[in-house]
Amino acid sequence: MKVNVKEMEQWIRQALQRQGLTEEDAEIMTQIYVETTKREVGHHDIHNLPSRLESLKKGTLNPRPVYTKNAAFGALERWDGDNGPGELICHFAMGRAVRLAETHGIGMCVMKNSNHYLCSAPYVLQAAEQGCIGFIIAKGVPSMGIPGCKGNVVGQSPIGYAFPAGGQDPVLLDICLAYVSGEELAKRARAGQEVPGWWGVDKEGKPVRTAAELMQGTKHPIGEHKGFGLAILCELLTGVLSGGLILDEDEEKEGIRARSTSHCAIAIKTDALWSREEYETRSEELLKRLRNRSAGVHIPGDGSFSHIRKCEQTGETELEEELIETIKRWAEP
Amino acid sequence: MKVNVKEMEQWIRQALQRQGLTEEDAEIMTQIYVETTKREVGHHDIHNLPSRLESLKKGTLNPRPVYTKNAAFGALERWDGDNGPGELICHFAMGRAVRLAETHGIGMCVMKNSNHYLCSAPYVLQAAEQGCIGFIIAKGVPSMGIPGCKGNVVGQSPIGYAFPAGGQDPVLLDICLAYVSGEELAKRARAGQEVPGWWGVDKEGKPVRTAAELMQGTKHPIGEHKGFGLAILCELLTGVLSGGLILDEDEEKEGIRARSTSHCAIAIKTDALWSREEYETRSEELLKRLRNRSAGVHIPGDGSFSHIRKCEQTGETELEEELIETIKRWAEP
Repeated sequence: MKVNVKEMEQWIRQALQRQGLTEEDAEIMTQIYVETTKREVGHHDIHNLPSRLESLKKGTLNPRPVYTKNAAFGALERWDGDNGPGELICHFAMGRAVRLAETHGIGMCVMKNSNHYLCSAPYVLQAAEQGCIGFIIAKGVPSMGIPGCKGNVVGQSPIGYAFPAGGQDPVLLDICLAYVSGEELAKRARAGQEVPGWWGVDKEGKPVRTAAELMQGTKHPIGEHKGFGLAILCELLTGVLSGGLILDEDEEKEGIRARSTSHCAIAIKTDALWSREEYETRSEELLKRLRNRSAGVHIPGDGSFSHIRKCEQTGETELEEELIETIKRWAEP
Repeated sequence: MKVNVKEMEQWIRQALQRQGLTEEDAEIMTQIYVETTKREVGHHDIHNLPSRLESLKKGTLNPRPVYTKNAAFGALERWDGDNGPGELICHFAMGRAVRLAETHGIGMCVMKNSNHYLCSAPYVLQAAEQGCIGFIIAKGVPSMGIPGCKGNVVGQSPIGYAFPAGGQDPVLLDICLAYVSGEELAKRARAGQEVPGWWGVDKEGKPVRTAAELMQGTKHPIGEHKGFGLAILCELLTGVLSGGLILDEDEEKEGIRARSTSHCAIAIKTDALWSREEYETRSEELLKRLRNRSAGVHIPGDGSFSHIRKCEQTGETELEEELIETIKRWAEP
């Protein structure tokens, strides 16, 4: 059904405030859910809100986290997220990284005791809006295999970046290192779709044919050993450097699975080594040249920004009635 | 034929000195060629030395580069490499990044007017030996397409990282963002091998079947839009931030193609947010857990270090007689 975006925003805000978030935190998280929903991807957006509200209600997610700085050195900081919502923690971590970049040109903030951060886009765009190249990594539990080995070996490493490009939309990449994210795969499985055989293996270890088979099997990293290698670096920069749990540690310890997540946010000030004008001219030149190389080149973020713009023009988005009814119930006083 | 590694080292050193490198620079470059050759990959090593010597002789590569610092801000530096050998420039750039990381916890050095750097391993290992996570990117000319678009759109972005892991060998990844590097592809084409169809398209735009077809066609990035997005970030961090050429600019300007390369080196001090012991314990734990997840897990670098060790035990490596004769001729006074 068609939903008025302003009304949706109000339901999200009220629902979050009712679960005990401060007005300020509810506002930050509301904007994250509104902006991601305007991309109209159908996951990693308002669709994830009911489970987040459920966790806040059950107390497995702390609505009033108090962050603690555990260590700092130059442009690096390491914080404890106090089991708060991943969205708030990543917003905070990127804010710190940008702040550090203002002084050092580059800044990095790692945080443990975090939770699901929804997706990379909100935080890397937050950095881009402040004139930085933003980069973020989330640690997860092992959910991706590698060719030649059985079972899930490594996290599928959600990562993303954005950078400002003068008068153009920022470039925005929001991916994981498997060929397909868990939620996209579930969507394809519901639609009964086939997937390329190299995306992973079924539960017998044979190349998959359908999304449903892959859901029962093991996803492989992009470029096999290449994606696997990048995923290991992501584990280092999150789990190891933050002092969080490493790889499958959470699977052993009762009750702390919900706190297994950690994050790494990096920001690079684009006008540190160049004037703002020089940076803008040259980053625009990069995009112009990419588009000129071949007809139909799609720059990462093109799709998102076109949906966001459409939403902003009409003031509406399309969502399932059941989802809207659920959110409205959470919002009721 | 079997070659004594010490003798090979001496021929490389003499050949480089004869082309006008200082004793110090010849020594740096010699060690880079010796160490990469000990990996026994058959490319990105001594096999590239004759073309490097040729360029030095022709004067397209500057044997006595004078680096100039063009800008600095906190933990960031931007240098001009004066058209020197990429190996020397990347050694210098990583040295600067490590130095900056000593003060700021993280350091980044970008350099333009560089040349082919051989591969990522020497420079990221250099950082790891000094207690840092080392990360390096090289910019190249567009040599990789994307599905749905014709021709080569973006550079295939050679990247690599290494990190120390306590008593274990460092983790070492040395890749490009295509499914296969140019030299590995050429090797497979010579051997008449088939390649997976998703690695790229032939010159008619159809999925490839053989390495030879792919050499005539267009390589695709790992994970399609994912690898493409990562390659764009690499172009930004090298060509744009260094002030070097962007994407295909070099194809337009006569004679400066050889100077189109730029590099970005990043170092993160591993004992900035942790004591050395804490870092070592936790990074070892990561490797232990990766190996324990599944039988036969291959950590990036395992193969290289096993070859290097074998070489060091026997003091010998296997190389083509013709190559050795060529190097020896370059070494003759």
